[in-house]
Amino acid sequence: MIAASDAPLSAACACCLPRRGFMRAVAALGAAAATGTPSASAQTAGRTPYRGPVIDCHGHYTTEPPAMLAWRKRQIDAINDPAHSPSASALSVSDDEVRASVAERQIKLQTERGISLALFSPRAGGMGHHIGNARTSLDWSIVSNDMIHRVVTLMPRNFVGVCQLPQTPGVSPQNCTAELERCVTQLGFVGCNVNPDPSGGHWSDPPLSDRFWYPLWEKMVELDVPGMVHVSASANRNFHATGAHYMNGDTTAFMQFVTSDLFKDFPTLRLIIPHGGGAVPYHWGRYRGLAQDLKRPPLTELLRNVYFDTCVYHQPGIDLLLKVVPPDNILFASEMVGAVNGIDPETGHAFDDTKRYVEAAALSDTDRAKVYAGNALRVYPRLAAKLDLAPSAP
Amino acid sequence: MIAASDAPLSAACACCLPRRGFMRAVAALGAAAATGTPSASAQTAGRTPYRGPVIDCHGHYTTEPPAMLAWRKRQIDAINDPAHSPSASALSVSDDEVRASVAERQIKLQTERGISLALFSPRAGGMGHHIGNARTSLDWSIVSNDMIHRVVTLMPRNFVGVCQLPQTPGVSPQNCTAELERCVTQLGFVGCNVNPDPSGGHWSDPPLSDRFWYPLWEKMVELDVPGMVHVSASANRNFHATGAHYMNGDTTAFMQFVTSDLFKDFPTLRLIIPHGGGAVPYHWGRYRGLAQDLKRPPLTELLRNVYFDTCVYHQPGIDLLLKVVPPDNILFASEMVGAVNGIDPETGHAFDDTKRYVEAAALSDTDRAKVYAGNALRVYPRLAAKLDLAPSAP
Repeated sequence: MIAASDAPLSAACACCLPRRGFMRAVAALGAAAATGTPSASAQTAGRTPYRGPVIDCHGHYTTEPPAMLAWRKRQIDAINDPAHSPSASALSVSDDEVRASVAERQIKLQTERGISLALFSPRAGGMGHHIGNARTSLDWSIVSNDMIHRVVTLMPRNFVGVCQLPQTPGVSPQNCTAELERCVTQLGFVGCNVNPDPSGGHWSDPPLSDRFWYPLWEKMVELDVPGMVHVSASANRNFHATGAHYMNGDTTAFMQFVTSDLFKDFPTLRLIIPHGGGAVPYHWGRYRGLAQDLKRPPLTELLRNVYFDTCVYHQPGIDLLLKVVPPDNILFASEMVGAVNGIDPETGHAFDDTKRYVEAAALSDTDRAKVYAGNALRVYPRLAAKLDLAPSAP
Repeated sequence: MIAASDAPLSAACACCLPRRGFMRAVAALGAAAATGTPSASAQTAGRTPYRGPVIDCHGHYTTEPPAMLAWRKRQIDAINDPAHSPSASALSVSDDEVRASVAERQIKLQTERGISLALFSPRAGGMGHHIGNARTSLDWSIVSNDMIHRVVTLMPRNFVGVCQLPQTPGVSPQNCTAELERCVTQLGFVGCNVNPDPSGGHWSDPPLSDRFWYPLWEKMVELDVPGMVHVSASANRNFHATGAHYMNGDTTAFMQFVTSDLFKDFPTLRLIIPHGGGAVPYHWGRYRGLAQDLKRPPLTELLRNVYFDTCVYHQPGIDLLLKVVPPDNILFASEMVGAVNGIDPETGHAFDDTKRYVEAAALSDTDRAKVYAGNALRVYPRLAAKLDLAPSAP
């Protein structure tokens, strides 16, 4: 599939190099490309330079072409007048516009930071599952996922697709399985984002451990794709989206897993909790203690199925994450371009340049390779084939 | 007031010693009582032993006499039949029962761990502001606060009162000011707990920065008492109370402060965010970055009014808290007996024995004294008089 997608690509720019053989090409670029910027390299003085791929498992399309946002606005404006809802074909964006939408941000930053590629999904805050009805959500999900597919197809070196699901409050997640299957089997996506609160901050649906969600888990297991548990925008003014709702969604989901037998019913289901796991690693002792008090299995059992990303935007946070969570359960990520865009005046570097923190952390070479790529290849089994890598490497 | 309360106390047990002159007595007990257990002392080898008081700013009455819980059950059973609601006088608990309710847990653990006293409030999960109506909440708050007053009066060496407020979803916090004033001016309480979500996990009231809350902030400023921002039980099955709702409440409140001008309007208002600040210190870089992106003042400005406690139940979490949050903004606490009751198999000590973590952390003697007592005396100005200490000490 990727080969077919790559076929029409002949542009000379770096971001359009065909993926097949890409990793071999990365290796040929030498240590500079693989270990990041000179400053980051300086932080790793005395260590073996890491020369493998760096997979950012958490990237959203936050730089959509204006036409895509305009399409969404038209759709929302027509919520009470479906006859005027735009069709998918009404969205017209050229290949050049798609390339340009990521060239100066995501791809530039990937190059600067030494990130090989990102698992790329629609803007999380834009999913807006609480807006309109199930049809609204489905139409928007198809448009959003198709646009991700175009990004991935045009720039296969830099992006691999992860889909948005057409969730709707009060509607069975069974409703999402067809779009998930389309994205995985037809578009070549390797995972999905699962919103634990489609209501947007009112938390009106059942917890993720409820049988309400089982049709989705069944399909994910069948397709062997993991899910990132990621809320969307907040429609509750108590919750700032990226400052509260995101963190709360992460923390809430983890505790739902602690208190349930979800993974007994789905032993091969894999879920990634983003943003470094919300409050969880910071309170790892609390969660170990709660599990013990509640006569639940130790957290280590949960870690057969649950993973955390590295979207924690300062060194002490990353250090804590890497200290308390086993290295097999941490996937490199930056959510770039995402929640925090500025430069940290304390370091002079971007807050979301998480690779710098991981580089500076006390990690063995083996564990660093796991965090950068090995774990992602294990958690997203469909990813290896896309990278033209044997499943066992690195 | 304390002197009067102390007058009838003549029992010989340690927990009933009159408070007046208590701190001088603590000093006379020597280093053992002040620095904790032998194991904790071992952790501090090479440091100047801390000989000042250790104030636990976060204790709840989680060991209520059964009659108190029975009273609450009768009240709830009569919600739809107010004629059968019990009167406050229907609750009968002897002084011995009150003493016994804390003797074998809180006081025993205070002694074992080297904690001088706790700021003591009704069980957080028991506040149940979402149950019944405003009258239900007021009656229960009065009963609960009066019981705290009995604990404090009987054991003034060990406890200082903090009140529950009669909050109710959709009802103005103005409704809480009379009970707050009674508790502070008549019962001698030094602070209050403020539930940012009286709905119990539905988050249906406005954020803490909304003018809805201003009558309460005005009264707190007038009385010069701080508030601990603390949710109660969860009535939303998505949220485990102590594993999700508590953390989410903390994180949510902080971001409400980041995005508002609340402390411009109330420059002397002081709010403590418990449980180590929820997710906030772990994501300190994220919050610094969000404040910057949102053109809000730096977090350091917020720290004129916002404090965090040390209810973080493992060493790496406490280490992170003490590293990223200035020592002037951290108040020692354990929430003992509270959310986590077990022994950590990795350390052999109680998860909630937070004094061990603070002892083992890299803190200067000056900063340790602030965390143990100095900050609490500053944030709770009415506390110093109760301890028979000059305001400038320690």
